[in-house]
Amino acid sequence: MAIQNKVSLPVIKRLPKYYRYLTNLSAEGREKISSSELAHMMGTTASQVRQDFNCFGGFGQQGIGYKVDVLRGEIGKLLFGDGERLSTILIGAGHLGSAVSSFISRDTNGYRLIGVFDINPALFDKEICGVPIHPLHELESFCAEYHPEVAVLCVPRQSAIDVAGSLVSYGIKGFWNFSHYDLSVEYPDITVENVHLGDSLMSLGYRLRNQE
Amino acid sequence: MAIQNKVSLPVIKRLPKYYRYLTNLSAEGREKISSSELAHMMGTTASQVRQDFNCFGGFGQQGIGYKVDVLRGEIGKLLFGDGERLSTILIGAGHLGSAVSSFISRDTNGYRLIGVFDINPALFDKEICGVPIHPLHELESFCAEYHPEVAVLCVPRQSAIDVAGSLVSYGIKGFWNFSHYDLSVEYPDITVENVHLGDSLMSLGYRLRNQE
Repeated sequence: MAIQNKVSLPVIKRLPKYYRYLTNLSAEGREKISSSELAHMMGTTASQVRQDFNCFGGFGQQGIGYKVDVLRGEIGKLLFGDGERLSTILIGAGHLGSAVSSFISRDTNGYRLIGVFDINPALFDKEICGVPIHPLHELESFCAEYHPEVAVLCVPRQSAIDVAGSLVSYGIKGFWNFSHYDLSVEYPDITVENVHLGDSLMSLGYRLRNQE
Repeated sequence: MAIQNKVSLPVIKRLPKYYRYLTNLSAEGREKISSSELAHMMGTTASQVRQDFNCFGGFGQQGIGYKVDVLRGEIGKLLFGDGERLSTILIGAGHLGSAVSSFISRDTNGYRLIGVFDINPALFDKEICGVPIHPLHELESFCAEYHPEVAVLCVPRQSAIDVAGSLVSYGIKGFWNFSHYDLSVEYPDITVENVHLGDSLMSLGYRLRNQE
């Protein structure tokens, strides 16, 4: 498969959506789908679908439709590689950390939750998704032993600022960042996926207040 | 202030980030900032900042820098209108619903949580953020009495499909959607802000596996 050297972020962000729709189609027993039908279901255009797929060599079959399972398999390979899951730690075991832990430990997303860290001693004898919660000061020795690749930050902005540099120095390559600290500015070589829930709500508010 | 008729979604989605940075700058006592300094802090370009601001009439002061508090106030007016909060209901009081409820009920985001609904009877005598949890079958009468404007969907895909049409018919204008149901396809006139956490994790995985 010929993958473009640098696929743009909007295209990458649409891949999981294609994968979801193809998974649903496959579960419904559909064997083939055209780019225009897929586009219609997803609320986009056939031209957008074809352009997106062309970034990865096109996945063949244009004109006669795509084979659903083949297409799902190809996009799955892009998203999940050879199936080896990315070992991941969660920083912050509060309400949000607990809620998102189920996405990390879910088989279908490509991650394996191996450690949870917090500063609240009341949590140290507890578990999240079957993974014990450690005191934050054990982070360095844990990373030295288990080499996690991804860190999920479910902590306030200042705590994220305090811990991000250490995590990078301990070998973390990617962040799923729920804090309001834009760490990609300070660490441009690190891969960061931000989920700014407050920002998301505010932009919904803008659209409701200004565009109705 | 001259607002363009239709501001593009990427610009709208950056407004909360500007607001956050300006809030931090204001808290630090900064009085003025240039577009290039603001851009540098945020990891973008001065030209992007000026282009974004031009969608709203430019907020004046180019060349001599923006007054931090004035700029923060103008962007705040766009995001929060006259300060009246959007009355909001939460569908789904599980882990995720509990975690995101704090964002809805937080004073600073522009919303007011007035009702929570679930199908789990074990939750009916409980509260989230001081708001009682109702059985889902009370949704219609609740909406008829209190006229919520926004619904937050923290339920699985099928439950979202089942409830979305009713919510639209009960007068809901906007959705903060955590389910894997892309309801904007079926209801194009409704304002939807999607937070697909699984998609977010998968696209992080793509970048870590293919672009390192």
